Amino acid sequence: MTSDAPRPSRATAARSHGRLSIGSSLRPRSLMDEPPLQKGAWQARIITLFPDAFPGVLGESLTGKALQDGLWALNTLDLRRFGEGRHRNVDDTPTGGGAGMVLRADVVDAALQEAAQGAVPDRSRWPVVYLSPRGRRFDQATARRWAQGDGITMLCGRFEGVDQRVIDKHDIEEVSLGDFVLTGGEIAAQALIDATVRLIPRVLGNHESVIEESFSDGLLEHPQYTRPTDWQGRLVPEVLLSGHHAKIESWRKAQAERLTKERRPDLWRAFCATHGRDPEEDREL
Amino acid sequence: MTSDAPRPSRATAARSHGRLSIGSSLRPRSLMDEPPLQKGAWQARIITLFPDAFPGVLGESLTGKALQDGLWALNTLDLRRFGEGRHRNVDDTPTGGGAGMVLRADVVDAALQEAAQGAVPDRSRWPVVYLSPRGRRFDQATARRWAQGDGITMLCGRFEGVDQRVIDKHDIEEVSLGDFVLTGGEIAAQALIDATVRLIPRVLGNHESVIEESFSDGLLEHPQYTRPTDWQGRLVPEVLLSGHHAKIESWRKAQAERLTKERRPDLWRAFCATHGRDPEEDREL
Repeated sequence: MTSDAPRPSRATAARSHGRLSIGSSLRPRSLMDEPPLQKGAWQARIITLFPDAFPGVLGESLTGKALQDGLWALNTLDLRRFGEGRHRNVDDTPTGGGAGMVLRADVVDAALQEAAQGAVPDRSRWPVVYLSPRGRRFDQATARRWAQGDGITMLCGRFEGVDQRVIDKHDIEEVSLGDFVLTGGEIAAQALIDATVRLIPRVLGNHESVIEESFSDGLLEHPQYTRPTDWQGRLVPEVLLSGHHAKIESWRKAQAERLTKERRPDLWRAFCATHGRDPEEDREL
Repeated sequence: MTSDAPRPSRATAARSHGRLSIGSSLRPRSLMDEPPLQKGAWQARIITLFPDAFPGVLGESLTGKALQDGLWALNTLDLRRFGEGRHRNVDDTPTGGGAGMVLRADVVDAALQEAAQGAVPDRSRWPVVYLSPRGRRFDQATARRWAQGDGITMLCGRFEGVDQRVIDKHDIEEVSLGDFVLTGGEIAAQALIDATVRLIPRVLGNHESVIEESFSDGLLEHPQYTRPTDWQGRLVPEVLLSGHHAKIESWRKAQAERLTKERRPDLWRAFCATHGRDPEEDREL
């Protein structure tokens, strides 16, 4: 810690996860003192009142291994550290009345300024995101775009929201996980990071998995089966046992189309539009 | 633990979170021996390869307090415990070829059978859900419906998916967090539980918050402001300082409509349809 700001307690310090990530400060000096991140490593910086909730599930499995290997880095900034007064208040009542509390512009501003140190200022390479149900909906295309950038800064809200003025000042992108309300942005942040990190080269052991799976071709994934072939009298579809590669591909494609048509007419129409197909056609499946 | 099955190690045992939730076994005998759940407490049972990732963020803040207070209960079942052989294998290669691994029907079936013990068999009161991008998209209406039930069992996938036959046998509902791919279902499970638990009576301190916020009325939430009134020359909109309740309400409503129209034409059209409004109208905002 090279900063001469009062040293925060362990629980409130910015925390770093992963072998090659930076330490407890995001100041440029610190970035130069510390061992460098693995070249090109994607960086996630999370402003949150619950830094202990990270890395959470992201520390497990493939994302966890990639974090250990320095393929990406995760830093949390405890918003409480930027709070005001003895109680380090971060919020206040909504101007004009109403339930809940609103995160203060000045407090969030201070955290965003620290998070910006050493980050790439080009927003197309390093978005600054506020997780909010008012935002544009996150999807696989966004994950792909983010994975090609240098990193991301995420602000996790709690309570009723964030003072609009700090969103305006920092030109923050509001992104939503979906049409539902969460207690806070932390779980949404983890979902967005998980979806992004797994698209970073070398994170998935088997790169094919990325190519084959859901949404890559605009269709839902076909049903999967594995051993035993006969399970409680339920049999694996015979074509999958045929060893006939082309027939298997064709069966899977037809199943993916059937599922998409049944479950997601919106995706099906989009798929037909880009593939010159008639959405009303009735193929032999 | 009253079961006479081999005692699993701490790391692999079913874990219980929350003061009044049941212990390390889900068998009915155990349920009767243990102190009862708070009457009407909503129960979440999670089948996962990463039980240590729970409660995660759910253990913090309002959901965490409600868990401590016994307003809901969280139990994890380690899927590895149901695996086959010395290595407790849970997956195998996809029949017919392809990348990745598929969770075995027999292994998942055993976990689902244990999770069903003591659960309400009526699926409308206690859904059994598999988190999958192929599923129906989760939304606030689903959260509301689930919160009115008795509990939920969630299967978190990893790898390429789950053998279709076990999905068919247990009539599992596939639910998706959104149009993106995650490394596993754990983060999605936490998001769905968070969105549901906060709608359980008494979980949110201020019940009004549930009523006012996004999606409850089909519109995105209006911008929020708090003190200071003048922040770096950026002022809170004057109407919010007027003390005129009706004018404030009307300004907020107009802002919510403007945001929804700009950002989410799909929600705006749905709102207009249910409110007898013309989606093309141009109101003075």
